[in-house]
Amino acid sequence: MTAPTGERPRGDLFSPACPTRRLLDRLGTKWVSMVVKLLAEAAPGEVRFAELQRRMPGVSQKMLSVTLRDLTRDGLVDRRVESTVPPRVHYRLTELGLSLEVPLGALRAWAQDHMAEIDAARDTAAARD
Amino acid sequence: MTAPTGERPRGDLFSPACPTRRLLDRLGTKWVSMVVKLLAEAAPGEVRFAELQRRMPGVSQKMLSVTLRDLTRDGLVDRRVESTVPPRVHYRLTELGLSLEVPLGALRAWAQDHMAEIDAARDTAAARD
Repeated sequence: MTAPTGERPRGDLFSPACPTRRLLDRLGTKWVSMVVKLLAEAAPGEVRFAELQRRMPGVSQKMLSVTLRDLTRDGLVDRRVESTVPPRVHYRLTELGLSLEVPLGALRAWAQDHMAEIDAARDTAAARD
Repeated sequence: MTAPTGERPRGDLFSPACPTRRLLDRLGTKWVSMVVKLLAEAAPGEVRFAELQRRMPGVSQKMLSVTLRDLTRDGLVDRRVESTVPPRVHYRLTELGLSLEVPLGALRAWAQDHMAEIDAARDTAAARD
C-alpha cells in the first residue's frame, strides 16, 4: 500500500499487512453476496431486516445481523431505525455499496453458471482419490 | 437448482441445499484470488508450488496446499508432478480456471480501489461506537 500525495492509497492484496486481504475475505462470502444483491434490486429503496431474512433461507438472525453490521461499518450500507413499537430496521446500499454489486454479481453469475461443471469435477476427483 | 433436459443445471445461490453456496465461499477468499491471479499471469504456462508460495507472503505451506488441492478437485487447476529428486510440482489453470480470473479480477480490483475509503469508514464507525 503506497500513498501518492493527494491520492487515496490503493490496496495491495499481495502485501500481508494490507487491509485489502481482510476486506476481500469479508466481501467474498455467500451472505454478503446475497445481501448486496437483494439491496441492489431494491435500490434506491430500502429493505427491512425481516424481509432480508425471509429471502435468505438458511441465514440465522445472528449471522444476518453481523453481516449487516459489518457492511454498515464499511460504509456500504445505510441503516435506519423507525421508532415504531417494536422498532423497524431498514437497510439500503450506499453509492459505494451499489458499485460493489457489479463485481459481486459477476462472481455470483460465474459460480451459478459453472456450479454443475465443478460439482462433476469434484465427483470425478472423489472417485479417483 | 433445476435441470432442464439436455442442459446443465444452473446453480441458485438462494437455495440452501445448492452447492453454489459452498462454492462461492470457497472462491471468494484472498488465497484463491491470489493463486488464480498468479496462475493467470503465467497461463498457458505453469508455476511451481515453491514459486507460488514465495509470491504469496503470509501463506503457510499447509494453506497453499489445501487451496491448490481444492482448486484441482474443482477442475480449475491442473497439477503435474515432475519426477525429480525431490519431486517438483507444477500447477496451471484449466480453461475453466482461466475464465474465473475475469470475475475474481474485477472483485480484487474493486477491493484494492476502495480499500482506503472502506478503511476510513470503519475508523469513523469505531470512533462513534
